[in-house]
Amino acid sequence: MLIEPKLLKGTRDFGPEEMAKRSTVLETLLTVFRRFGFQQIETPALEYAETLLGKYGDDAAKLVYQFKDHGGRDIALRYDLTVPSARYVAMNLHDLPKPFKRFQVAPVWRAERPQKGRYREFWQCDIDIFGVTNMVADAECAKLASEVFEALKIPVRILINNRRFLNSVLEKIGVADKDFLAVIRTIDKLDKIGKEGVREELMKRLSAKQTDSLLKVIGVEGSNDEKLDLLSGYDVSELREFFDLCEQLGVRDVEFLPSLARGLDYYTGTIYEVVCKGIQLGSICGGGRYDNLCGMFSETSVPGVGWSVGLDRTIVAMEELGLFEVEMPPVKVLVTQFDVGTRAMSLSVVSVLWESGIRAELYSGDDLSLKKQFQYANKKRIPFVLVLGPDEVKKGVVQVKTMQSGEQKEVALEKITEFFLVQP
Amino acid sequence: MLIEPKLLKGTRDFGPEEMAKRSTVLETLLTVFRRFGFQQIETPALEYAETLLGKYGDDAAKLVYQFKDHGGRDIALRYDLTVPSARYVAMNLHDLPKPFKRFQVAPVWRAERPQKGRYREFWQCDIDIFGVTNMVADAECAKLASEVFEALKIPVRILINNRRFLNSVLEKIGVADKDFLAVIRTIDKLDKIGKEGVREELMKRLSAKQTDSLLKVIGVEGSNDEKLDLLSGYDVSELREFFDLCEQLGVRDVEFLPSLARGLDYYTGTIYEVVCKGIQLGSICGGGRYDNLCGMFSETSVPGVGWSVGLDRTIVAMEELGLFEVEMPPVKVLVTQFDVGTRAMSLSVVSVLWESGIRAELYSGDDLSLKKQFQYANKKRIPFVLVLGPDEVKKGVVQVKTMQSGEQKEVALEKITEFFLVQP
Repeated sequence: MLIEPKLLKGTRDFGPEEMAKRSTVLETLLTVFRRFGFQQIETPALEYAETLLGKYGDDAAKLVYQFKDHGGRDIALRYDLTVPSARYVAMNLHDLPKPFKRFQVAPVWRAERPQKGRYREFWQCDIDIFGVTNMVADAECAKLASEVFEALKIPVRILINNRRFLNSVLEKIGVADKDFLAVIRTIDKLDKIGKEGVREELMKRLSAKQTDSLLKVIGVEGSNDEKLDLLSGYDVSELREFFDLCEQLGVRDVEFLPSLARGLDYYTGTIYEVVCKGIQLGSICGGGRYDNLCGMFSETSVPGVGWSVGLDRTIVAMEELGLFEVEMPPVKVLVTQFDVGTRAMSLSVVSVLWESGIRAELYSGDDLSLKKQFQYANKKRIPFVLVLGPDEVKKGVVQVKTMQSGEQKEVALEKITEFFLVQP
Repeated sequence: MLIEPKLLKGTRDFGPEEMAKRSTVLETLLTVFRRFGFQQIETPALEYAETLLGKYGDDAAKLVYQFKDHGGRDIALRYDLTVPSARYVAMNLHDLPKPFKRFQVAPVWRAERPQKGRYREFWQCDIDIFGVTNMVADAECAKLASEVFEALKIPVRILINNRRFLNSVLEKIGVADKDFLAVIRTIDKLDKIGKEGVREELMKRLSAKQTDSLLKVIGVEGSNDEKLDLLSGYDVSELREFFDLCEQLGVRDVEFLPSLARGLDYYTGTIYEVVCKGIQLGSICGGGRYDNLCGMFSETSVPGVGWSVGLDRTIVAMEELGLFEVEMPPVKVLVTQFDVGTRAMSLSVVSVLWESGIRAELYSGDDLSLKKQFQYANKKRIPFVLVLGPDEVKKGVVQVKTMQSGEQKEVALEKITEFFLVQP
């Protein structure tokens, strides 16, 4: 009985071309992360459900994939990389350098309603600094974001806000403590539901006057300094220090956005969100400071600050910006098989090429017609094809065909490694 | 309320040192895979349960993590990379080159009883050639295994058997068709339960005479040619061709092992298993030919052959063999902060180093005592520490301390990038 091969909604296969793009981006990210002294860790996809729940807020909790394992334990698939890392840091506090700068690159799962650009399984690339309260770490994370997107050649705006500032605003306009998170989550929807939508939702909890004041504060405009001056009646001390440090670190493109909120519960200070200049795409990177998250796992308080790049949106951005250059063909030469009589020679030639470190491919299809083998080379964009029939075996040579020009060249068998070593 | 931070049994965290080893091994694998023209793909961790079930055999099926998603669908975490790849190939048949040589590197999940070296979440690194029935592909996979372990410097034996040969043996000694897989699964336990254990288990299905004949066949000794000659009354034609092709490809260390069975149901021809010479560890790589697997998803038959490297055991092998060299320190220099007064200069220096592509780290801890900062450099094995106090700022210099010798050197601010660019 045939089983229809199909993908779960919200999940994807990545073929060779997409994977080539993903590898390119990941390699760049890892290079920059390492240049800053960040170290890679990995945590499991499966965690106890209680490790993950109670950290993200109620809306997010509904999206966590949970189930019982074969031993009846309540387990869950990770929803992000921050909470598992906080668990890891709490468990390994005494062995880790302090501060601990780590990166992690891995898939996460969210039972979202699938829609354009939103997946149930997707990759995050996180960097975080654990064990530090001072704002230098916050500015360092901004610098790292700036260098990452510069390395990827994506022009960005790094949007900044601060939960302490937002809290001081809510306090001053008399919002009840218990409503803080709900109000912040409402502000976070500004992009989605617009100013009037936010006003309407705020009015469910706040008076008209409170709503107006709040909308006025989060709507101020001007340069960073102008906004900070306008809002100096609220707690902008961390923001001021942050922007000073960013200037000392030469971070370009940081922008104070008083309406930036981010939905997750666990942020306590700086908030980051990175958007691409010139294309409508939502954020490609986001994060913030979370000084109480590790404290949910350990008596010792371990503050943290960091962000996460969404690999998918980053790739969409680079595609829209035309940033993926035509990559070098992965393989230099296809070694064909002429027939069973000359096969031993083909196998011996490809084996010599492999052992010399040359990217070569042995045609190992069942259909040995040369036409098929040339089609195969074209499909895989292999620039040279090596043909070796009975005449060539007799003469001790091979024919090397350059696919682009159609030109053919006879090369002595013993010169073949040398020949390909000097090809670009 | 504190939540005790803990890992699920059978899952692991990997800290920076372990991740450095894993990256080193993965980089080598990918380099060799690409050198042979294999292309990377990725499939989701979550699949429909029916995609995975009915492929591995009953014992394995019990170990598949299954659950219902938020929409009530029966879903499962992948158990290996072969079945999802077969699903992918069936879905993308017309777009893929033929043959399709792909690799995939990803975690898989099995609800095994955790024990030494056996995990519930672990990484596999697979290569497979789809769309080919001829034995050149089987030999190419053996060559690739040989090159991979040579690149990793692990001395190996590549053990080979063939399901067609095994089936011909079972047929000749009169084992009923329906018992073939059960008998093969019993033979597969030879290493675990020994010859007498296997005999006992075989006797449940076979007569004493059949059991004796079978044990005699799978116990023959000698060189590959001697064994093939001794067993020429059975179907050894594929094995003969395979070993001929391996010789033409210069594959060393392939060894015909008539008792090699491998437990999975889906194998139809060649079987591979790679073990390390000189250490007791079980197999570090295994696979085979599976000509009917894709056919479970598609009317078009797509044969396949390939193998999977277990990342964990490969790393254990390399540790036991002492193959991980002391790696270069990941970061060259730690830029310290002397105090808040000189901080701007420290930030400006590190920012210049980063922008020049130098691996530098900014100390961003809360405790700015130089002692702490030197301890931090030692913990992360950073070879140089850069100190910049008020005197240095005044003079326009920095002090560069070499951690190993304790030597200190004054370097002019404008020469600092140059200084680190020439350090090894």
